[in-house]
Amino acid sequence: MICDNLDINELGHLTFSGFDTVDLVKKYGTPLYLLDENKIREKCHLYLETMHKYFGKDALPLYASKANCFKQMYKIVGEEHIGIDVVSLGELYTAHAAGFDLSKAFFHGNNKTDEDIYQAIKYNIGYFVVDNEEELLSLQEIAQKEQVVQKILIRITPGIDPHTYVEVATGNVDSKFGNAIATGQADKIVELALRQKNIRLVGLHCHVGSQVFTEDVHLKALRIMLDFVKHIKDKYNYETEKLNLGGGFGVRYVESDPLIDIESKIREIADEFHQVCHKLKIREPQILMEPGRSLIADSGLTLYSVGSVKKIIGYKNYVSVDGGMTDNPRYALYKSSYTCLCANKMRESNNFKCDLVGRCCESGDIIQKDILLPDSIRRNDLIAVCTTGAYNYSMSSNYNRLPKPPVVMLKDKQDYLVVKRESYQDLIRNDI
Amino acid sequence: MICDNLDINELGHLTFSGFDTVDLVKKYGTPLYLLDENKIREKCHLYLETMHKYFGKDALPLYASKANCFKQMYKIVGEEHIGIDVVSLGELYTAHAAGFDLSKAFFHGNNKTDEDIYQAIKYNIGYFVVDNEEELLSLQEIAQKEQVVQKILIRITPGIDPHTYVEVATGNVDSKFGNAIATGQADKIVELALRQKNIRLVGLHCHVGSQVFTEDVHLKALRIMLDFVKHIKDKYNYETEKLNLGGGFGVRYVESDPLIDIESKIREIADEFHQVCHKLKIREPQILMEPGRSLIADSGLTLYSVGSVKKIIGYKNYVSVDGGMTDNPRYALYKSSYTCLCANKMRESNNFKCDLVGRCCESGDIIQKDILLPDSIRRNDLIAVCTTGAYNYSMSSNYNRLPKPPVVMLKDKQDYLVVKRESYQDLIRNDI
Repeated sequence: MICDNLDINELGHLTFSGFDTVDLVKKYGTPLYLLDENKIREKCHLYLETMHKYFGKDALPLYASKANCFKQMYKIVGEEHIGIDVVSLGELYTAHAAGFDLSKAFFHGNNKTDEDIYQAIKYNIGYFVVDNEEELLSLQEIAQKEQVVQKILIRITPGIDPHTYVEVATGNVDSKFGNAIATGQADKIVELALRQKNIRLVGLHCHVGSQVFTEDVHLKALRIMLDFVKHIKDKYNYETEKLNLGGGFGVRYVESDPLIDIESKIREIADEFHQVCHKLKIREPQILMEPGRSLIADSGLTLYSVGSVKKIIGYKNYVSVDGGMTDNPRYALYKSSYTCLCANKMRESNNFKCDLVGRCCESGDIIQKDILLPDSIRRNDLIAVCTTGAYNYSMSSNYNRLPKPPVVMLKDKQDYLVVKRESYQDLIRNDI
Repeated sequence: MICDNLDINELGHLTFSGFDTVDLVKKYGTPLYLLDENKIREKCHLYLETMHKYFGKDALPLYASKANCFKQMYKIVGEEHIGIDVVSLGELYTAHAAGFDLSKAFFHGNNKTDEDIYQAIKYNIGYFVVDNEEELLSLQEIAQKEQVVQKILIRITPGIDPHTYVEVATGNVDSKFGNAIATGQADKIVELALRQKNIRLVGLHCHVGSQVFTEDVHLKALRIMLDFVKHIKDKYNYETEKLNLGGGFGVRYVESDPLIDIESKIREIADEFHQVCHKLKIREPQILMEPGRSLIADSGLTLYSVGSVKKIIGYKNYVSVDGGMTDNPRYALYKSSYTCLCANKMRESNNFKCDLVGRCCESGDIIQKDILLPDSIRRNDLIAVCTTGAYNYSMSSNYNRLPKPPVVMLKDKQDYLVVKRESYQDLIRNDI
């Protein structure tokens, strides 16, 4: 099985985190997002313990909220003692509503409005990760007006090609994010930040991209960042307190994807970190990392009901389900791979080649092309799409006026709703 | 200007439907969707009158709701005496809530659940456009239980390449939609429908795809459909009452797109229709058409505020706005073209080459690449993206936990809210 929380029970049903998926569908209907709370906690713990072990006790993982954001998620990561990165007031509002300690929140994004800045200061957010000069100057102005000194990190573009989808690559010099070292802009914004009275620069941030498998990308970025730490120490006598290395470890969507060992990966980065800091004679900054996808993707599973099986003789076959690009736009956007299973017929062999498509009136509404399902597949069978914990619920839309599916959390023997299914009344609540 | 409802006033501001866009932003904020009610009504009227003129008084345009769906839209099309096509219970619920006469509603989609079918029957919907055999048999079962005879059309795949984006092409034999004539499946489902007691087959439907510019695609589809009408008349002695030709006329997003003259196009199709019916000796069925994009796209405009202007020396430039793939995912999905203007600096020349990008933490969050804006562009300037009336609000998401922008309708001298801006409270309303 693609994830270790998947299994098959005596009825030939797919189980997820020990729960019979067919029973969950009877209780909650389809489409349905499931999340495995034990696995989420395990991953939070793994990141925290491993970072402590190799980087020291002040190291901290930050959950990248945009992967999957709702109140209960913040409760869980809060209980696991990790921090968060947020990219909007919407995420900040949700974290606040969940009672999350916002002193451990880092505010990201290439475009924070004055309202974002003002409200985040009002929330006493821990840190801004400043993307650009305009933001820095607006932040100074608002912080001055509010009579606070705001702690910030600056987003630096190391100038690295992460060899991932172009849509999620962010470390290149020509990225929309951050300030490139290569062009001198990183240097310039650090200097500008150090001159602001209501801003306290506490560190630097970089992020090379998402779903990265290439061996040395994170090591390269680390070396470039530490060289820059040394550079600004020498040039401005500025000691970097915090270095945020971002996220990006790839996860396994299909059998052919590599399986990244998070502990080895962190150890490898930490080894390099200690060596390079020693060599450059710089004080070791506190290390932050931002797992999003790698923390939650394989804790997720989506269940659908089949609506039709269409065999276009001599051409191709389609299996249509009751969700699609509305709850999972990743194939439509990036041609992403997924493992798809017939959840109620796990003992049958899969010989029926088909495209798994959604219910939207759009040909691009595809979940996965050329998959194999049982020959007996028919209306009302159940389809499970694996590894949907990240960038599915958070990217969902109401295209075709479809309500968003609910999110159900599974913990030990207990299943419980964390996000209710949208109602039709919800859809028109803002219509006048 | 790309649309005839755009102009520049004495302040050098962009006007839309006669309104100063800078004033509208002061009143409603950004991001902001605008719709030109006069133009929408003009287009409804144009379709209805032209179809009456060339096809006869029983011809009817149906607004394809998925292009842009909210209550007020159904009020407007209802007042303009046209019908609607809906693709989900969500659209049907919205139309019902707006008081739309559902006897003029046609229910589309490749995957209608039993719940969809049951509820639509309860709403006394006019017609189902049946996509496949499983749906047909479920519909028969539910209609029988509910003791009704449900009128249906059958979706037929003519087997035509519409030469548009692959994501919105639907007329090919290997489409997920409908029943191909070429494979004999169209014939088979007609025969099956005619045998159902609680179903009355009243006609056929086809749709070749969306954003189609190629001259003869609609004519080819028409001929194929009329041949099929003749075929089932001869074979089953079945007289087709209604023939729905779908939609698909392309709209102009950028200057290089052709401008389709809807009246000429309809006249051309009608000429062919009368000739072929005469030649084939078939009674002329009532003609339906389904304009979505071509009815509403150029009635829309989106306004954004600039958050940052990033010049990566030697590489490229970015202008970031406070919306993006969340309110307009069409570049991310299809690399769609758009005309983008600096709404408050319309008298300045545009020499600054840049990518216009959104605020999402994702490199793929692009509105348009390589556009020209004024050299003076800076934080808090306004950007207008034209021709966003179709597939923008309806495809919007809450990715990055961003609230959806409001929709403001402009009519004569009056601007009024038709969809309220989402609040942060809205975002967490279903979180437990």
